[in-house]
Amino acid sequence: MPPTQITSRHNPRLKEAAALRNRKQRDEHRQTLVYGARESTRALACGADLRTAFVCEELLGEAGRQATAELEARGVEVVGVSPDAFEKLAYGDRLDGVVSIAATSRRTLADLPDLPERPLIAVIEGVEKPGNLGALLRTADGAGADAVVVADPVIDLYNPNAIRASVATVFLDKVVVSTAAECIDWLRQSGVAVFATRPDATESCWQADLSGAAAIVLGAEATGLTDAWHTAGARPVSLPMLGVGDSLNVSVTAAVLLYEARRQRGASRRH
Amino acid sequence: MPPTQITSRHNPRLKEAAALRNRKQRDEHRQTLVYGARESTRALACGADLRTAFVCEELLGEAGRQATAELEARGVEVVGVSPDAFEKLAYGDRLDGVVSIAATSRRTLADLPDLPERPLIAVIEGVEKPGNLGALLRTADGAGADAVVVADPVIDLYNPNAIRASVATVFLDKVVVSTAAECIDWLRQSGVAVFATRPDATESCWQADLSGAAAIVLGAEATGLTDAWHTAGARPVSLPMLGVGDSLNVSVTAAVLLYEARRQRGASRRH
Repeated sequence: MPPTQITSRHNPRLKEAAALRNRKQRDEHRQTLVYGARESTRALACGADLRTAFVCEELLGEAGRQATAELEARGVEVVGVSPDAFEKLAYGDRLDGVVSIAATSRRTLADLPDLPERPLIAVIEGVEKPGNLGALLRTADGAGADAVVVADPVIDLYNPNAIRASVATVFLDKVVVSTAAECIDWLRQSGVAVFATRPDATESCWQADLSGAAAIVLGAEATGLTDAWHTAGARPVSLPMLGVGDSLNVSVTAAVLLYEARRQRGASRRH
Repeated sequence: MPPTQITSRHNPRLKEAAALRNRKQRDEHRQTLVYGARESTRALACGADLRTAFVCEELLGEAGRQATAELEARGVEVVGVSPDAFEKLAYGDRLDGVVSIAATSRRTLADLPDLPERPLIAVIEGVEKPGNLGALLRTADGAGADAVVVADPVIDLYNPNAIRASVATVFLDKVVVSTAAECIDWLRQSGVAVFATRPDATESCWQADLSGAAAIVLGAEATGLTDAWHTAGARPVSLPMLGVGDSLNVSVTAAVLLYEARRQRGASRRH
């Protein structure tokens, strides 16, 4: 650990970092905040360009100390911050002593890495809540989606709450932003079958053949998918609702469909 | 809509209701708060004993007006509240104009309704976050779990945030609280096979036979399951992690396993 370098809440570097909680500032500086020790090291593992980690030694647990050492070893500038000054950066209930600054990217469909022959793709349209986006990204990573397209998002991909909920998987190069229209064109040109969950679909996710090149398209929880997807020939599939509820959270729906696609493909482990 | 009856933040009924945000008050009065119009009507549908709905007409949308009419028709006392006074009740970001009071129950394993021959049961042990509990309950309802046992919870089942995240399914009579030890005994006596997710398990959830009487046991995200379950012979199954992450959210894990169990049972719709 370096000695404490910042002890004042009015330190210019600290103020500049804290300003990144604001979307305009993130857009302008092309940087964002990664809250948490685990999230910071995971961001590195996901390919993020991590520049600076503000670390408050007094708040670090054993895991935080290990994470800090790993960040230093990987070339991240570690800046010691006093507890009082650190408070300016840390908001919410998760004060584990590490807040990092990462570069944001503006990756689009053209930036996607080469896809396998029968890719499994997740698309989320019009997402409004950072927590929902983050949970979807974490789930898509776990299920081994080859690409995640965030279409017409209402929110900023690099909202710190989305980053945290995604456990930093938002930094993976397979996560891109697009308009819905561009995404529909791209899927058609790539010969990818598009499946959209609808409660009234006659075919269930277990009856549908998800073993080929397939995209699972999910809408924002409140409003659902726009008509463009149905016009473009998306095949409706249902996730049976077997209780009193009429819908499930978007990341839960994604999990069942993506893992069902993996099951049909006979995959156990890709890596 | 009744005329506005409460216009003061110091109204005794309003103060008594607002006090239910506190766990001690909920325990003492055996009542809790249900935030939201949709959540209030869903609570009724789930069998909750809903006594009073505080309604702020100025905040109601069309859905809220319909919900209020439904609550009145179902015999719930609807009390009109001025916007200023309503603020005392409403916290967080969801001010849709309806907050209800519901009785809480202390249902245990003995109170469970009769189970089918091959029940599908979800168990969550040591849950610490209201949002995680609520999401798990919503998911278990969607997947048609026949019983949900909340074992050794750290939090109150009737935390308003858990109720909201569960979309009121916490009020279903198949949701009960138990100690882990009692739950293990009960499952053994009932001849239910117990499956515990472990990342290092050699058998995946697709290889395991989940078609008989089965319980899926989930641990709190931070600490996992206690050893009691492994000692009691819980069969480890894995949910393959196919990306960079090493775990998924507890409700996401539950969704994949419970729906896989439903798939194996050949169920499409139970109701």
